[in-house]
Amino acid sequence: MTNCIYIVGMGPGKGTKMTIEARAILKEMDTIIGYQVYLDLLGEEYSDKELISTPMKKEVERCRICYEKALEGKKVAMVCSGDAGIYGMASLMYELLQEYSNPNKKIKLRVVPGITAAISGAAEIGAPLNHDFCVISLSDLLTPWEKIEKRLKAAAYADFAIALYNPSSKKRSHYLEKACIIMSEYIENTRPCGYVKNIGREGTEIKVCSFEELKNEKVDMFTTVFIGNSCTKIIDNKLITPRGYKKNE
Amino acid sequence: MTNCIYIVGMGPGKGTKMTIEARAILKEMDTIIGYQVYLDLLGEEYSDKELISTPMKKEVERCRICYEKALEGKKVAMVCSGDAGIYGMASLMYELLQEYSNPNKKIKLRVVPGITAAISGAAEIGAPLNHDFCVISLSDLLTPWEKIEKRLKAAAYADFAIALYNPSSKKRSHYLEKACIIMSEYIENTRPCGYVKNIGREGTEIKVCSFEELKNEKVDMFTTVFIGNSCTKIIDNKLITPRGYKKNE
Repeated sequence: MTNCIYIVGMGPGKGTKMTIEARAILKEMDTIIGYQVYLDLLGEEYSDKELISTPMKKEVERCRICYEKALEGKKVAMVCSGDAGIYGMASLMYELLQEYSNPNKKIKLRVVPGITAAISGAAEIGAPLNHDFCVISLSDLLTPWEKIEKRLKAAAYADFAIALYNPSSKKRSHYLEKACIIMSEYIENTRPCGYVKNIGREGTEIKVCSFEELKNEKVDMFTTVFIGNSCTKIIDNKLITPRGYKKNE
Repeated sequence: MTNCIYIVGMGPGKGTKMTIEARAILKEMDTIIGYQVYLDLLGEEYSDKELISTPMKKEVERCRICYEKALEGKKVAMVCSGDAGIYGMASLMYELLQEYSNPNKKIKLRVVPGITAAISGAAEIGAPLNHDFCVISLSDLLTPWEKIEKRLKAAAYADFAIALYNPSSKKRSHYLEKACIIMSEYIENTRPCGYVKNIGREGTEIKVCSFEELKNEKVDMFTTVFIGNSCTKIIDNKLITPRGYKKNE
């Protein structure tokens, strides 16, 4: 017997940026498991499901509940905001697989992709990632800061467009400034940058600014920051990184 | 009067990985414009629309048709495979905006995000991008090779998980091998890697292999290549980059 657990990316916000496939799968489930904020975002449409949440930092417990429910024979999905495989729960689910799956009762995992904040935020602010790009999280909760610093430097040096996740939190209020100082070795003050707060939720806020201004901006953990590459321009107050098609005209 | 042109990411393949929002917008349109392959993928559901395509390398012309149709008063969407803002047409549409928009007849652009191949391919092959990552295109049609080389080196040096787009084509059959040789300064032969061909289309093919094996793999322009970071593991024949939650247990 094989049970399948779906690990579903909801996209940002209230679910209209969820894929048609993700919605169809969630509709089929008995049980949906996730961080409470994500379950709240799902809303009425899924109120006939068994909904289970665990607090932040209880990610391992949340995954274990998925496996236990699947072994009980329930159709189970774990939901994540954005995409489940970008700073999401997909890899942790795989890391626990061998504890629960065996030749007699095999469990299969399926990751159902979703729109991550780099992509939904980029769409709101224009097209800042329309060429080679990096995504870097400034959270050092699970990653040594030295590693983050090395990546920031390399990304700036090699002229990637950059999306920063988790640019700040109560305990890490100066991290964006710190990151900007590190990158300023390679990025000029006038470089077009910007950020999007609360993508797909109430209170969405979009700001285009210079690299120099960026380091003093008030951002929070619901903000995605964009740093253009050396070709990025501001057009109609949007952040645009050219792909290069225009020279083909 | 303001007209809005939608630049819509269809996600990979036949449209079930399109977002609910993207589908609702396309349903409202009079005219859908795109590369013929993408229009074919849309299929029957949109056969009541005026569908217009231009060949590859005629991207500027394709954008101009969008503007002309919008100025005629049509509701227009440009469709792109994956996401319109990741190596897509969004930035080119913005670059042409000022030629068509003026205070009397303002045209607004709206990018509607979609699932890019890095995300849909990652979901197929496990969770290779579950930490800081880079997306790099190996196509030097619009980008000098020296720039691509610099980015490959920096990405490998700073231990990013990496997704490669356009790893090969008829004219560039050795580019993946070339890229691997450049990155081998920093990436060991045993590093878990892999690729996904024809994501969301017929003939999907998923392969997990070592970095050493990768350079000799036969890939094409419909392949997305994944290179793990130094923590990436193979679990259940999938490519898994840990986020680091497990140490919180």
